[in-house]
Amino acid sequence: MVLFRQRLGDVLRGRRAELGLTLREVSGVARVSLGYISEIERGQKEASSELLSSLCEALDMPLSDVLRDVADAVALDEAALAAEISSIPARPLAGEVVASAA
Amino acid sequence: MVLFRQRLGDVLRGRRAELGLTLREVSGVARVSLGYISEIERGQKEASSELLSSLCEALDMPLSDVLRDVADAVALDEAALAAEISSIPARPLAGEVVASAA
Repeated sequence: MVLFRQRLGDVLRGRRAELGLTLREVSGVARVSLGYISEIERGQKEASSELLSSLCEALDMPLSDVLRDVADAVALDEAALAAEISSIPARPLAGEVVASAA
Repeated sequence: MVLFRQRLGDVLRGRRAELGLTLREVSGVARVSLGYISEIERGQKEASSELLSSLCEALDMPLSDVLRDVADAVALDEAALAAEISSIPARPLAGEVVASAA
């Protein structure tokens, strides 16, 4: 199952790294506890919509851009999952097994 | 403040309407209570990532597509908010007031 919070965490952490900010700095600007931001970045906690907007502001990135980046990452997950499912070999039918054994 | 859950609710409700499904039908397929889905559609409750994935599956819409539609709606909100802020007349400086009164 593709989970929104995991890809959201990746995008938020990536943006913070891009800006060269520490968790402590983002925590101070967004007024969110350092531990909570860390859990969100690791995809372990859901961010409320209010918190997500605060984080976007602290990271100077519009929420719409964050969501587009998350959508792109999720689309890759979905494609990988679909490829994985289609690569599982189909079980041979009982008739085929008998035929090859003959 | 632009809130993710409000635009997410709009997109999910729009997709359900597009498919002509009732809340009860989606509730049955997604195995989520009818009241909870209704609150999510109205932007009153946050959906967990697991629940969001179940709803997307029940609505036969990839999560990535849902997120892109939400990103588009949020971008419109952001543009409207920016236009609103820029249309607020700047308060005249003290010096200008004195000059116009003279």
